[in-house]
Amino acid sequence: MGGRGMIKIGCVHLVGAGPGDPELLTLKALRLLAAAEVVVHDRLVSPEVIALANPVARRISVGKEAGRHSVPQDEINLLLEALAREGKTVVRLKGGDPFIFGRGGEEALHLAKAGIPCFVVPGITAAAGCGAAAGIPLTHRGLAGSVRLITGHGRDDQDMAIDWSSLADPDCTLVFYMGLGTAPLIAAKLIEGGLPAHTPAAAIENGTTPRQRRHLTTLGALPKVAEACQPPTLLIIGPVVTLAAELLPASVDDWKVAAE
Amino acid sequence: MGGRGMIKIGCVHLVGAGPGDPELLTLKALRLLAAAEVVVHDRLVSPEVIALANPVARRISVGKEAGRHSVPQDEINLLLEALAREGKTVVRLKGGDPFIFGRGGEEALHLAKAGIPCFVVPGITAAAGCGAAAGIPLTHRGLAGSVRLITGHGRDDQDMAIDWSSLADPDCTLVFYMGLGTAPLIAAKLIEGGLPAHTPAAAIENGTTPRQRRHLTTLGALPKVAEACQPPTLLIIGPVVTLAAELLPASVDDWKVAAE
Repeated sequence: MGGRGMIKIGCVHLVGAGPGDPELLTLKALRLLAAAEVVVHDRLVSPEVIALANPVARRISVGKEAGRHSVPQDEINLLLEALAREGKTVVRLKGGDPFIFGRGGEEALHLAKAGIPCFVVPGITAAAGCGAAAGIPLTHRGLAGSVRLITGHGRDDQDMAIDWSSLADPDCTLVFYMGLGTAPLIAAKLIEGGLPAHTPAAAIENGTTPRQRRHLTTLGALPKVAEACQPPTLLIIGPVVTLAAELLPASVDDWKVAAE
Repeated sequence: MGGRGMIKIGCVHLVGAGPGDPELLTLKALRLLAAAEVVVHDRLVSPEVIALANPVARRISVGKEAGRHSVPQDEINLLLEALAREGKTVVRLKGGDPFIFGRGGEEALHLAKAGIPCFVVPGITAAAGCGAAAGIPLTHRGLAGSVRLITGHGRDDQDMAIDWSSLADPDCTLVFYMGLGTAPLIAAKLIEGGLPAHTPAAAIENGTTPRQRRHLTTLGALPKVAEACQPPTLLIIGPVVTLAAELLPASVDDWKVAAE
């Protein structure tokens, strides 16, 4: 059509970029990236993934980088709306999955209120990516009947607002995202809540990437291990962590080389 | 080399096929499928995904089908081992993610004990797939600070062996896999544990596929809704379900058509 007075409205695809390894992108994410007119991405999305976008697409980083502040969530919402109102096909690329600690719900809600078509494409969340890459099944008969994904982000206990008493279920694997800074609090509260200090725990740095480092430890020693880690690091706590040494006895990197 | 006396040993890739939509396969899964010599797959893996495998690969279904029993887990373990000992490159294709209710840990453990190289490729788990496709963020500021994935599989309460008291955290989204048969028990136990009967709940049938049906209800009415559903159906319980009507106001199918 395109007649005078017609308004072409764009759309926003909230796309999960997965945990780091560009090969863990979905086919759908790749197709949308290749067709995008604008890509708005977080810092956590790897350059290799962003490189898969339409070469002529405009790229906008809204993530925190060394020495620079990240764009506040409200501004990201307004940016996505404005780009769609320009008629653009926008891919909003987020690390992991948009609806698991990705704040995708907030962006989707803003766009829905603004009447902008918004579609959500799931991605491999860090728990699944790191579990696979570190030899840690998140559930396992006899060891864990469920898994809980929790954000460790926050300045202190009040800020985290977690009902710690509900976390001391030994049959439930606990996975903390962004829990490096609060690892001492997490460990103390879980032990106080009833989990033994010798509960197996793992810290996975840069999971699924060539820079992955896997630390196998216990809940009691987790704060000390976390001190030596750099973000992004995922914390996995529970009896399933004992399987890691058997499933990936050598270093993860050795196995990666063998898998090529 | 291939000299006399050399033993060529194969390997097994435990690969997550995602929640149903073939486009939610990862690039890595596609590459491995295209190179596989044997594909051993579950019933839950869609034919469209299996069609992406190497055309000359042998295909072995080990899933339960109408009127036929599924292959017991021990036999699957031995089958994978035997194929690898024949020198084959095997892709063991599982619905969702191999390490989240996929029993992938059991297969990986058997292969590790047998000395067979085994590699795990994560997949989009049903919770992430259905959340995205049904407009339900699994976490959301102010509504859910964590999400717990639980298997609803079992014959009765004793069989499920769940610590129900730890589930009544209103800040944690609950996602039940395979919970159709036990929906009455799940609802009763959660209400008994302290969750209000008016807690928002959703049942997602055939999530991410063209046959997807989304049912928005409450915890109290969930058993009645579940009666009308066919497996596979995922249950999502928590305040985040209230966002669904706003994020996907029309039927999901309408939106899918718009997204093409």
